[in-house]
Amino acid sequence: MDGQHAERNLSMVMDFYELTMSNGYFRENRGHDELVVFDVFYRNNPDNGGYSIFAGLEQIIEYIQNLHFSEEDIAYLRGQGIFLEEFLQYLEQFTFSGDIYALPEGTVMYPNEPVLTVIAPVIDAQLIETAILLEINHQSLIATKTRRICNAAGTCSVSDFGARRAHNMDAAVYGARAAYIGGAFSTATVLAGQMFGIPVSGTMAHSWIMYFSDEYTAFRKYAEMYPDAAVLLVDTYDVLRSGVPNAIRVAKEVLEPMGKRLKGIRLDSGDLAYLSKKARRMLDDAGLNDCIIVASNSLDEFTIQSLLSQGACIDSFGVGERLITSKSEPVFGAVYKIAAVRHNDIFEPRIKISENVEKITNPGFKELYRVYDQNHKAIADLIAGREEIIKDGDSVEYIDPKKPWKKRFFENCTFRPLLEPVFLQGRLVRGRTGVEEIREYVSRQLSEEIWEEEQRFVNPHVHYLDMTPEYYRMKNALLRKAKES
Amino acid sequence: MDGQHAERNLSMVMDFYELTMSNGYFRENRGHDELVVFDVFYRNNPDNGGYSIFAGLEQIIEYIQNLHFSEEDIAYLRGQGIFLEEFLQYLEQFTFSGDIYALPEGTVMYPNEPVLTVIAPVIDAQLIETAILLEINHQSLIATKTRRICNAAGTCSVSDFGARRAHNMDAAVYGARAAYIGGAFSTATVLAGQMFGIPVSGTMAHSWIMYFSDEYTAFRKYAEMYPDAAVLLVDTYDVLRSGVPNAIRVAKEVLEPMGKRLKGIRLDSGDLAYLSKKARRMLDDAGLNDCIIVASNSLDEFTIQSLLSQGACIDSFGVGERLITSKSEPVFGAVYKIAAVRHNDIFEPRIKISENVEKITNPGFKELYRVYDQNHKAIADLIAGREEIIKDGDSVEYIDPKKPWKKRFFENCTFRPLLEPVFLQGRLVRGRTGVEEIREYVSRQLSEEIWEEEQRFVNPHVHYLDMTPEYYRMKNALLRKAKES
Repeated sequence: MDGQHAERNLSMVMDFYELTMSNGYFRENRGHDELVVFDVFYRNNPDNGGYSIFAGLEQIIEYIQNLHFSEEDIAYLRGQGIFLEEFLQYLEQFTFSGDIYALPEGTVMYPNEPVLTVIAPVIDAQLIETAILLEINHQSLIATKTRRICNAAGTCSVSDFGARRAHNMDAAVYGARAAYIGGAFSTATVLAGQMFGIPVSGTMAHSWIMYFSDEYTAFRKYAEMYPDAAVLLVDTYDVLRSGVPNAIRVAKEVLEPMGKRLKGIRLDSGDLAYLSKKARRMLDDAGLNDCIIVASNSLDEFTIQSLLSQGACIDSFGVGERLITSKSEPVFGAVYKIAAVRHNDIFEPRIKISENVEKITNPGFKELYRVYDQNHKAIADLIAGREEIIKDGDSVEYIDPKKPWKKRFFENCTFRPLLEPVFLQGRLVRGRTGVEEIREYVSRQLSEEIWEEEQRFVNPHVHYLDMTPEYYRMKNALLRKAKES
Repeated sequence: MDGQHAERNLSMVMDFYELTMSNGYFRENRGHDELVVFDVFYRNNPDNGGYSIFAGLEQIIEYIQNLHFSEEDIAYLRGQGIFLEEFLQYLEQFTFSGDIYALPEGTVMYPNEPVLTVIAPVIDAQLIETAILLEINHQSLIATKTRRICNAAGTCSVSDFGARRAHNMDAAVYGARAAYIGGAFSTATVLAGQMFGIPVSGTMAHSWIMYFSDEYTAFRKYAEMYPDAAVLLVDTYDVLRSGVPNAIRVAKEVLEPMGKRLKGIRLDSGDLAYLSKKARRMLDDAGLNDCIIVASNSLDEFTIQSLLSQGACIDSFGVGERLITSKSEPVFGAVYKIAAVRHNDIFEPRIKISENVEKITNPGFKELYRVYDQNHKAIADLIAGREEIIKDGDSVEYIDPKKPWKKRFFENCTFRPLLEPVFLQGRLVRGRTGVEEIREYVSRQLSEEIWEEEQRFVNPHVHYLDMTPEYYRMKNALLRKAKES
């Protein structure tokens, strides 16, 4: 289908330096031989939250499978006048040949741990940097934001109404996908419904009301058309003096004679707490207790929490701009850093020191475990060297890097390796996962495995990211060596 | 070329209610006959600025020209079970048949004035709402943000480094386009360079440095490869003790023997003011006065202004996440509101009252003029009825809606109608405009026509949006009538 990453040539969506560096690696004649390890990780949860949701993997798979440089692409690059002709010929034949390990899509993730690892010849690994980051950054951002909004909404449903404020077409479509994964009940974006099987929904615009000579006529026409699904927008002229009374009249005069009930009304401006309570009373007094109230207008987790705490009578939230742009924090900062270079079959770890302490990387080819207690609650994540063996049930020593002087043990825990193979030597090695399954996985983790204390908005518990003693010693030795040289 | 809106089926990127309403209009059997007028306008400049830049029109043109529903689309809609079969058949044949007037792309625009007007059969006008808004909202947001960043950077150049933090593929590519229109010197996003002819640029990633055994070797290899264009990233280990000294060594030992000069260094972490001054001195002391310093790391107009006011020795800024997401204000709130419905050849104005005063619309089929004084400075914008005739040089009475009791006149002014025909009866009636021309137009307006006082960041002058007396009276009569009924 049009719009799928698998059918578009997105290979040139990369930073120019990926190509200039690859040209350099090629010249070094090393591109083909040596493997490198790159990790994707991020440093902070958006909105000072306690966790994030890993999303975008299915689109990364499509991107990788379709990665190729067309004749037109090569001609454009040749025109830049700085690439070796042999390198351009190499690109003409290029397909991704490496391994990719990643968290299953929808996995709850935490800062500074590897969420996707690439082991590949250096050119392969370098060329895919931009697209991988962009996809994870976008979809993880929106999935995480939507999860927060759904948490605030509690038993009320949340629908994505954001397309018109999205950062262009893909942001609307893949944003809707991420929102659904994060817990949205439906989307208004038709193409997202079509591409991913997400339920689509919507009410009516002010233009419908204003097109007709008066509000009652507009409501009547709509109810006649959609007697089972009419949600009438009541704020075009005056909610309490015109909109709600006209909606009630339509319920009585148009729908009841058809044996139908008015499905709902929508409030899109004004004081939503006050208006929803007043409207609820008017509807109830008219015997329309089953008529739902949908609210929209620049909502997010904070306004929704506030509305519900004021006793607003709202059943469903249409959330637009603040969901689809993650307005309060529109940047998800995942980065892609080299962690090791293979020389003579040994992965030599690499570390970046930087001028900012928080930008120091976790070196080496490593594994990430989620550590569960006997109630299957996730009590920590654990970084280990790839070669280390961690066994369930043992007493496993670990180091909390923030308190490294303490000797600590996981007792009677189970250890789940989180990074699963996605590509091996360029071949996709797992089945594709649909949004429904990913969405359920998110929901299951948050209700069963992840502490509630990590899910609150204010001062959430900071999930522990521990290290095996062996890994911790390796990292520190590398840090000391780098600072000495 | 892949990725162009003209070659993708984006017709289903719309809110579901556009289709349910259109189905309703179709049932009313009015879709074909009556014309309606919809205006696009927005209510606030991002970041409390004094103006915005209208962008995205060329992509709207591509979208409109390619608008059609495929068999697959129709089948999907049929599966929803709520559309009239005749309506689906109508959609199968659908192409846009209306008129679109718009500001030329790159025009400086202000709140509450029409920036794009659609006059079309109601179904045609309704179906294109979401895509038009999405395109204007995204590109105007990024163009406006970039203009602010460039204003802060003054004579220093600004490059878009944002792809990896963009909200998916289109946001990277069309964001780069908008950034260029807004004044960026170049982009790192290769596909944007390829599609629009924007200059591409880039330096190197930390991975290049870390791939080699040591920083000096990494710098040397890069300089040998790109002796004319090497900008060396100096913060992987320690800027002042390792990065800058190694860069200087490469300039002396590698480039000078080739008769070349080191082009630049890049700082990507730490205190950029302090480090740039120290680095500048070290470079100057080594005779590398012409070696530029590029800075990056979460920059925007505010950090750039602060850095330059501290005397930071920076020649060029690489701006990523805060440009490509417009982080401080990631939502551009353009809306699409019905303004008139034609009955018996007369356009009857429509007004939306709403519960929020700022959401009251400007009714009717209207024209927008930019009013220039004798020095060709834009002193106000003026809304008039479409049928009114405004002549240059006359003494033209107007009303400032904020002080309607005052009788005011434009004396010796010229009036430029801003809305130009783009489509007439579905046919494109103007040539396409390239990004270079749009970019120059933006720059020319801001340097020649637009008051500096509107361009400052803090408390900018609020541009006047005036009305002709005739238009003002019509709006007020409509307001009174709506409130009486």
